[in-house]
Amino acid sequence: MGGDRAPDEIVAGALDAAADGIEIVLFGLPGIDTGGLELVEADDVIAMHEKPAEAVRAKPGSSLVAAHIAVAESRADAVVSAGNTGAMLAAGLLHLRRLQGVMRPAIAVPIPTRRGPSVLLDAGANADARPEHLLQFAHMGAVFAEDILGLARPEVRLLSIGEEPEKGNQLTLEAHALLSASELHFAGNAESRDLLAGAADVVVCDGFTGNVALKLLEGTIKTLLEALREEIAATPRGKLGGLLIRPAARRLRTQLDPDTYGGAYLLGLRGLSVIAHGNSSRQAIANAIRLAARGVEHDVVGRLASRMPERRSTAAV
Amino acid sequence: MGGDRAPDEIVAGALDAAADGIEIVLFGLPGIDTGGLELVEADDVIAMHEKPAEAVRAKPGSSLVAAHIAVAESRADAVVSAGNTGAMLAAGLLHLRRLQGVMRPAIAVPIPTRRGPSVLLDAGANADARPEHLLQFAHMGAVFAEDILGLARPEVRLLSIGEEPEKGNQLTLEAHALLSASELHFAGNAESRDLLAGAADVVVCDGFTGNVALKLLEGTIKTLLEALREEIAATPRGKLGGLLIRPAARRLRTQLDPDTYGGAYLLGLRGLSVIAHGNSSRQAIANAIRLAARGVEHDVVGRLASRMPERRSTAAV
Repeated sequence: MGGDRAPDEIVAGALDAAADGIEIVLFGLPGIDTGGLELVEADDVIAMHEKPAEAVRAKPGSSLVAAHIAVAESRADAVVSAGNTGAMLAAGLLHLRRLQGVMRPAIAVPIPTRRGPSVLLDAGANADARPEHLLQFAHMGAVFAEDILGLARPEVRLLSIGEEPEKGNQLTLEAHALLSASELHFAGNAESRDLLAGAADVVVCDGFTGNVALKLLEGTIKTLLEALREEIAATPRGKLGGLLIRPAARRLRTQLDPDTYGGAYLLGLRGLSVIAHGNSSRQAIANAIRLAARGVEHDVVGRLASRMPERRSTAAV
Repeated sequence: MGGDRAPDEIVAGALDAAADGIEIVLFGLPGIDTGGLELVEADDVIAMHEKPAEAVRAKPGSSLVAAHIAVAESRADAVVSAGNTGAMLAAGLLHLRRLQGVMRPAIAVPIPTRRGPSVLLDAGANADARPEHLLQFAHMGAVFAEDILGLARPEVRLLSIGEEPEKGNQLTLEAHALLSASELHFAGNAESRDLLAGAADVVVCDGFTGNVALKLLEGTIKTLLEALREEIAATPRGKLGGLLIRPAARRLRTQLDPDTYGGAYLLGLRGLSVIAHGNSSRQAIANAIRLAARGVEHDVVGRLASRMPERRSTAAV
């Protein structure tokens, strides 16, 4: 029921993913045409504008919450939704709960770049973060890069306003010191201008900065390509040229398409949660489900659990 | 002497601006070919990598510092440089000094958007800022939008991670309350995805966020257009199409060209300071000088001085 195009695009995407052999259970209001997929009937829906924490508590029978409970009770391996991001976070915290040692879950967004995929986190779960949170995000991002993006010994960088260690705000200056002292393959600060070119395998930042960066990246690509299309369509000469460059434009779009992954992981929970864009297309939904399946196959949750260094040693004492 | 292309592109840009009737004095090392412009000989230079505050104190005879002293002593109306941004800020604070009531100067960058010009501030002078600083940035940005961009009653928005007032981090939540209570034409939060499309006349944020946003905007446009050019050049069909769309691409570039303004104002000082990009072309330098001249003609410094509400009333007590 989540997102702007539910339920039709969601069901269509689920059917595409099911054709790959992924077992899918849909959670939604009675009467939806699921094309033959199993439907667990929900008695309510959380809307995009609702206050997340309140809605999750008030609507335990909603499709979003019921799907989380199914994962918590091991009736499903992962939950995927294009619904209210805040509600996904709240339901994850309440029903899946944090992994031991994880201070804050983070939203990890895979970004297609000119040099191949990279992952940016946190993309919005924590608008305010502390340096030690950023260190944990880096560890979680490294697991994601290894297992989901298939990158060996991923290079981690800290998003800041200059490559030199002394450039940044109070948060990044302190996080830089923590990252430098860690066993991660930390390569220093990344500048936002290099994000689309491929600044690093893992780009770490607080959720406010990450959300601003991600939306700016998406919005700028969209606005620029639309503007180019308009200018091209303004003259007959341009129109002809536009036809001729269409294959080139398509190659570029395939390479940088945000729908390539379709979703972001909410990392740091005891269950796998994938958040898709609110306006996800059928293809984006199918890819988000595939992303979730890959996480299950690679046991990302288990790998994260064994990778949280800080608190585990404390717990072992 | 500032920037990557000094002195040749700087002198060339200065000559272009001088042809418009702007009186120009160059500050630089002896022996530079100034094409007939007046040269005040400096005995030193501040390099791009030097620590700003230390360099400004240690090198009072450097071209950058000497040019500031000329403004402080009313031998010039404004200083323009493509040099070390941090040194511009340090020299401005030390030699021009803050306007009464201004807590923190801010870098105001005019951005060409699809809907016309807007101004983003702070673009990097204050990596950490408090809510009351953001309120002052908004006032300074409004003066800039009125006098330099020629916009009547400019609309101010706060850069955040959602349009709703309750979306943001601690800083933006508090700044939102201050802006709402002000006499500014405050229209709420802006999302970064709308920056290039024209989110508002004045976009306010802390210097860390602004610097990340600005560099991401520039870097994404650059990477995307380069990638498109590469893909187009990969086939004969694409190459022909590329030739045909060239006028359309040029129109777009003219509309969104960051060199349109060539520079950013350092607002909040008792003198006018314009910071140009380190890799400024001749045209960017000429436009940065024109931007400075416009600021002098509109007495932006005087208008700012009469517009800082908070402390002025305190000072009047």
